[in-house]
Amino acid sequence: MSPKLTRIVIAGVGTVGNGVLDLLAKNKILQNFRFEIPYVASRRKINIRKFHLKNTKVFRDAKSILELNDYDVLVELIGGDEGVSKKIVFDALKKGKKVVTANKALVSKYWDEINKRCTKYNSLIFYEAAVAGGIPIIKVIKEFLLSDKIRKIYGILNGTSNFILTNMLTKNEDFEKILKKAQELGYAEAEPSFDIDGIDTAHKLSILASIAFNLNCSVDKVSTDGIRNIELMDLKYSEELGYKIKLLGIINFKNKELLSFVYPCLIDKRELISSVDGVYNGIVVESDFCKKSFFQGERAGAEPTATSVVSDLLTIKNSSKKNKTIINSNIKHKSLKIDNRIGSYYLRFTTIDKSGVISGITKEFKKNNISMKSMLQKDQNPNSKNATIVVTTHNCLEKDIKKALTKINALKFIIKKTVMIRIENFK
Amino acid sequence: MSPKLTRIVIAGVGTVGNGVLDLLAKNKILQNFRFEIPYVASRRKINIRKFHLKNTKVFRDAKSILELNDYDVLVELIGGDEGVSKKIVFDALKKGKKVVTANKALVSKYWDEINKRCTKYNSLIFYEAAVAGGIPIIKVIKEFLLSDKIRKIYGILNGTSNFILTNMLTKNEDFEKILKKAQELGYAEAEPSFDIDGIDTAHKLSILASIAFNLNCSVDKVSTDGIRNIELMDLKYSEELGYKIKLLGIINFKNKELLSFVYPCLIDKRELISSVDGVYNGIVVESDFCKKSFFQGERAGAEPTATSVVSDLLTIKNSSKKNKTIINSNIKHKSLKIDNRIGSYYLRFTTIDKSGVISGITKEFKKNNISMKSMLQKDQNPNSKNATIVVTTHNCLEKDIKKALTKINALKFIIKKTVMIRIENFK
Repeated sequence: MSPKLTRIVIAGVGTVGNGVLDLLAKNKILQNFRFEIPYVASRRKINIRKFHLKNTKVFRDAKSILELNDYDVLVELIGGDEGVSKKIVFDALKKGKKVVTANKALVSKYWDEINKRCTKYNSLIFYEAAVAGGIPIIKVIKEFLLSDKIRKIYGILNGTSNFILTNMLTKNEDFEKILKKAQELGYAEAEPSFDIDGIDTAHKLSILASIAFNLNCSVDKVSTDGIRNIELMDLKYSEELGYKIKLLGIINFKNKELLSFVYPCLIDKRELISSVDGVYNGIVVESDFCKKSFFQGERAGAEPTATSVVSDLLTIKNSSKKNKTIINSNIKHKSLKIDNRIGSYYLRFTTIDKSGVISGITKEFKKNNISMKSMLQKDQNPNSKNATIVVTTHNCLEKDIKKALTKINALKFIIKKTVMIRIENFK
Repeated sequence: MSPKLTRIVIAGVGTVGNGVLDLLAKNKILQNFRFEIPYVASRRKINIRKFHLKNTKVFRDAKSILELNDYDVLVELIGGDEGVSKKIVFDALKKGKKVVTANKALVSKYWDEINKRCTKYNSLIFYEAAVAGGIPIIKVIKEFLLSDKIRKIYGILNGTSNFILTNMLTKNEDFEKILKKAQELGYAEAEPSFDIDGIDTAHKLSILASIAFNLNCSVDKVSTDGIRNIELMDLKYSEELGYKIKLLGIINFKNKELLSFVYPCLIDKRELISSVDGVYNGIVVESDFCKKSFFQGERAGAEPTATSVVSDLLTIKNSSKKNKTIINSNIKHKSLKIDNRIGSYYLRFTTIDKSGVISGITKEFKKNNISMKSMLQKDQNPNSKNATIVVTTHNCLEKDIKKALTKINALKFIIKKTVMIRIENFK
């Protein structure tokens, strides 16, 4: 039996859009699976023949899509959580269409509204390309682990930050220098804050939390911290202590309480997630039946992301809408505040090199129920009158660490604000 | 819209069958997705109430299933490539039913026949549970990477062998002792040859090759070698040289030539696949668009395998048979003979400790176009008159290595058959 023809509108032909058109043409997906592309919206002039297309109408303004109705699937690859991308996605959902998008910001911000539209207008949205490039994590969660109970997910979801952290250490250079290199290589944007401040990771994490735990995890509720303040020397001390520093997204759902944190943290070198270096992404899923699953893949470059988009198109092709069971219980939950985090910490104190310093620090520790696990005293420059003291703690409450640090930073012998980086323990 | 009821017959309630019934009951899959289990076949007496079932008829003999027609899906969990499992699977396919199975031996051996039946009778077969327990590798290949072009797959697909190799080194004990331990822990069968001789890996590999490259890879064509002859000292020398020894399955398709090998081999410690230790499984897929993807998960224990079975049931629930596009081009190909392998080798010579030995060996190397990469001379026991020489080679032809070793083993100063283990290089 020959499958039904599926008409696709592609909005946005930047890096990813080019990759999608390329992949559809290259491996004969269009012919083999009976897809057709009647409309493409592209700001730049494009040569549709290159993609083996004829009879395709090209709009310069994506808003023209709002006028259309003779299509089945909108593929939105413009990006941004407002403006034209939002308009065309919302319009397509209202028209009962299927939408495939790589737009994490939009999906994350309007999760609730998008789901409401899907229910009301019997439309569907697919967003494999929005999270972790070449890793089919949405498929794994929504299809493979659907019967299992997911407890925890953590991962390296931003290739740019991971590239910077990896290369600072291997190239022995500061954050600013490596960021510049990443920008030259096209791994970082001219305005890099989205990536390096953890915002991109937070968007992806909020989507993962929403589907893994069946709730609406607003991105504002994700406690988010980036890598801008990570110094080369902290990467080095961490290595000496047996850790790597990674920008991690972590979600955990227990007793109706959702933990969702993005921060750079120290991870034991022997952990699998520590082996994810350079621009790679990596994700660990912990669940009841499958215990611990690990996935590593290419960052969200054009080609892996295109594969995710086309995978969604093929899912649409093979799935039966009639039989679709959507469980959308939208579980009520509280969000755990980062101040209530219980974990261990890496602290780097910069002090005047004199006696009484350590006892001054430990006195504040004791007052705040903090116990030391290890201490490393560094004196890099023999002519310097300063000392560097690196401490790791046993598990304690973040609130207590912060209280102690406020007191310690006010002590006379402290000459620079103390550096605090969380340690993540997966045992 | 409420989905259609799907009636499942479960054949075989051993470890995996119990896991499946448990999972279906535990997370309310039966109710939420409208599954029903009218029939179960179990040799042992089972308590169906434990799994929240009523109105389920239990057969003691799975052959009774041959009489049935009032069901939609057969879940075959009996195992074995002949006998009753084959009978009921073939019968169900002939009746136009869907079959879900964990039976790698059956699927691998009768790949061609099974596919013919599916086409002829409009039936479908699903076998996520047959390969790599908690890793959804079939889904990844058949759905996520469907549009991409897969070039190479390699992986650790047998938890038992991996447990043995890992523990020999960490516990400093011989193969036999660790095998016994694995049997006590339930990781190895009383008759372990299926696992340790690479046969289980070959079955899984032949399935992966068939779906990844769209051909019929008969298991007889997979060159298969196991870990029975791996000695503790080789694990130790390998470690010294920067390698781990792993039982690997490798497939590669190029110019209509299929490479499909199962053998223990030395892998650079820094490779991701080397980090897969103990009973874990790990797979690397190399493809045009997604480059290099890595998956690690639990071995095929009851719970991960149950998750795979239920994942297939949910795929059936959500997929539209009408729109199903089956591309079954069954590409004609030749199989590469292991003698034509080009790669490097680890060789351990046991010789009399006298001069002229090394020149005797290198003379044969030269004659056969083999060049040495590194040499390690070991003399563990000072009272011994024997010497151990460990050599690694640059890339050469396997045929040449074998020719050289035949000659070298016949030399007078060689007092034990030389050990040859392949080195796998993924750069």
